[in-house]
Amino acid sequence: MTHDDLTWPTITSRSVTLDDTGVHILDRRVFPFQIAFVFCSSYEAVAIAIEQMVTQSNGPFYAAGAGMVLAARYAETHLAPDARAAFLRAAAVRLIATRPTNNNVGMAVRNIVDHLDSLEADKSGFADRAEARMRAEWAHRRAALRRVGENAASLIPDGASVLTHCWSEGALVETLGALLIAGKRIRLWCTETRPYLQGARLTSHSAAEMGIPTTVITDGMVADAMRQGKVSIFMTAADRVTMSGHVINKVGTLTGAIAARHFGLPYYATVMLPDPLAKTPEDVEMEQRDGNEVLHCMGHRTASPLVQGWYPAFDITPPDLVSRIITRDGIFAPDALVAAP
Amino acid sequence: MTHDDLTWPTITSRSVTLDDTGVHILDRRVFPFQIAFVFCSSYEAVAIAIEQMVTQSNGPFYAAGAGMVLAARYAETHLAPDARAAFLRAAAVRLIATRPTNNNVGMAVRNIVDHLDSLEADKSGFADRAEARMRAEWAHRRAALRRVGENAASLIPDGASVLTHCWSEGALVETLGALLIAGKRIRLWCTETRPYLQGARLTSHSAAEMGIPTTVITDGMVADAMRQGKVSIFMTAADRVTMSGHVINKVGTLTGAIAARHFGLPYYATVMLPDPLAKTPEDVEMEQRDGNEVLHCMGHRTASPLVQGWYPAFDITPPDLVSRIITRDGIFAPDALVAAP
Repeated sequence: MTHDDLTWPTITSRSVTLDDTGVHILDRRVFPFQIAFVFCSSYEAVAIAIEQMVTQSNGPFYAAGAGMVLAARYAETHLAPDARAAFLRAAAVRLIATRPTNNNVGMAVRNIVDHLDSLEADKSGFADRAEARMRAEWAHRRAALRRVGENAASLIPDGASVLTHCWSEGALVETLGALLIAGKRIRLWCTETRPYLQGARLTSHSAAEMGIPTTVITDGMVADAMRQGKVSIFMTAADRVTMSGHVINKVGTLTGAIAARHFGLPYYATVMLPDPLAKTPEDVEMEQRDGNEVLHCMGHRTASPLVQGWYPAFDITPPDLVSRIITRDGIFAPDALVAAP
Repeated sequence: MTHDDLTWPTITSRSVTLDDTGVHILDRRVFPFQIAFVFCSSYEAVAIAIEQMVTQSNGPFYAAGAGMVLAARYAETHLAPDARAAFLRAAAVRLIATRPTNNNVGMAVRNIVDHLDSLEADKSGFADRAEARMRAEWAHRRAALRRVGENAASLIPDGASVLTHCWSEGALVETLGALLIAGKRIRLWCTETRPYLQGARLTSHSAAEMGIPTTVITDGMVADAMRQGKVSIFMTAADRVTMSGHVINKVGTLTGAIAARHFGLPYYATVMLPDPLAKTPEDVEMEQRDGNEVLHCMGHRTASPLVQGWYPAFDITPPDLVSRIITRDGIFAPDALVAAP
C-alpha cells in the first residue's frame, strides 16, 4: 500500500488520506483554528463523517472512495467470497445517501462498485485491487487539476497580485504551485467570503502554507483594493460553467467581476470542464439557502433579532464580464466554449 | 427640564438622553443583542464612556454636550461663582481629549464653553441656561437631519427597494420617517458591513423598529441582489463629500456604487453639507485601520493564523458614479456642488 502522491504541503491537500489503519479526514468544521483529523476505521464511520460535514466540496470525493476501500478490506477479511459483492453494493448505497445531490460521492463510489467483476471481488487480493483502482482515480483527478493549474498559471505574469473569492481548492493550490515552479512571484488577496468564511479560513491558510504572501479583506473591499492598485487579476473557481459561457460560482463572484471590469482588470474562472448538459444558466438549478445563515458568524448571532436574511448560494456572471475560462483541456474565451472537447 | 423631542421611536434615536439624574448612553458595544444604557452622573463618567467606545459616530456629539451640562450643574451647586468658568473650561479640555479628531465632540463642547459670558456662569440658573443652549443645539441638528431626510425621501418613489451600506444614523431614520409620513411603501436591504457589522446590528434594527421590512445580506451579495431585481436604489450616507463631488464613506460604498452603475440603478449619498475645505479627496486624510480587525468578528478570530488583514476604513466614490448628493439645503448633481451654499 502506498501513501498519496501529495503535490503541495498544504494541510488542505491532505484533507483525506488512507493508510493501513483507516481513513483520516481533516475536520473542516474547526479548521484552521484547530488542525484535527477524524479517524474512520469503517465505511459506516466515513458515511457519518460526511453526513456531519467533517469535509465538504471535493472532500467527499476522496472520503467516499476511501470508504469503499475500507468496505472491500472488511469484505475480504470477514465475508465469504460470494457475499462480498452484495456487501460492497450496500456500502455504495449507504455512502451515496450521505449527500444525494453531490456528484463527487457518486463518482467515487461507482468507480469501485461498477467494476466489481473486473476487480474479482470473490478472489484473494480484492481489497488491494480496489485500493489501486481508487488511487488511480485520485491520481487522475489530481493530474487534471494540475493541468487546470498549469493553464491558469500561464496567464498570470511575474509580480501579479491575484484577488480570489471563496475557496477554489485543488485548482488554486495547483495554480499557485505552477507559479512557484515557474519562479513567478505573486501576492494573493482573499475575500473572507461570508457567511462561511471559506476565504479567511481555507484559501488564505493554504496559500500562506505555500509561502505566498496572503492578505484577507472583507467582501465589500474588492473595489477599493482594485482602486488602490493592490490587485491586478480577479480569479475564482466555478461551480459550473455553462456552454453559453456563464460562470456560476459562490455568491459575490459577480460583485468582483463587475468591479474588475470597471477597473479594466481581467477576470479568470477555473473549472475542470464546462458542463455540456447546461446550455445556459436556465438549465442549472440555483440553490437558495436559509437566510438565517447570513445572520450568524461561526455560531454567534451577528444581526438584529428583528430582521431576516437572504442567502443565494451562487450568483451568475455573464460571459461579457469573463475574460477567460480556464479548463483541464485549455483556455477559452467565454463565447468559444462550443470548441471545448 | 424637558425630555428630548424624539422624532422616531427607534432605540438608536435615544442613544443619548439627559434627565435630572444624569446622562444615559446606549451601549453600542452590545447592541442590539442587549439593550443597555451606561449611566453617567458626571462629565468625567461621560468622558470615560466616550473613550471606552460606548457610543460612536454622532453619539459623542450628544454625549459631550450632555457632559458639559453635568459639569455646569456641578459647578453651580458646588463651586464659588468665580470658579465656575475655569471648571467648565477644564471639563471641555477633558471631553475633547477623548476623541481629538472627532469634530462632533469639539462642536458640542464649544457650544457651551465659547459662550460662558452670555450664559452668565457666575449667576444663579447657569446650569439651566447651559442645558437650554445644549437642547437648542440638539434641536438644530435634528431639524437639519430632518431636512436631509425629507430631501432624500423626495427622490424615493412608492414601492422602492433601497439598498444601503453601513449605518447612516439620523439621516436614514429621517428618510424612512419622511417616507412613512408620505405614505410611501418601501423595503430596505442592508449589507451587514464587516468587520463591525453596523448594517446587521444598527441599520437593520432601527429600520425594523420603524416597521420597514428589512433584509440583511453579506457585503458580497450587492451585485446579485441587483441582478435579481431585489433593489431599485443604492443609498448611503457620506462621512465627507468634497467640492469635486467625491463621496468618502465606509469602505464598501464604492463596490456598491460600481454595481449600481452596472445595473443602471441610481446611487444617492446623503450628507449634512459638502465640506468647503475639501476641494478634492487629496485634501482628506484617509484613515487606515488595523488590518487585524478584518480577521475577527465580534471578538472571535475568523481567519487563518498565518495571514494578515487590510482595513482601509473609507473608500472614495468618484462623481461619475454618484447620481445625486442629498444635503440639508437641497439635492445636487455631484458636479454642481459649487452651487451649494
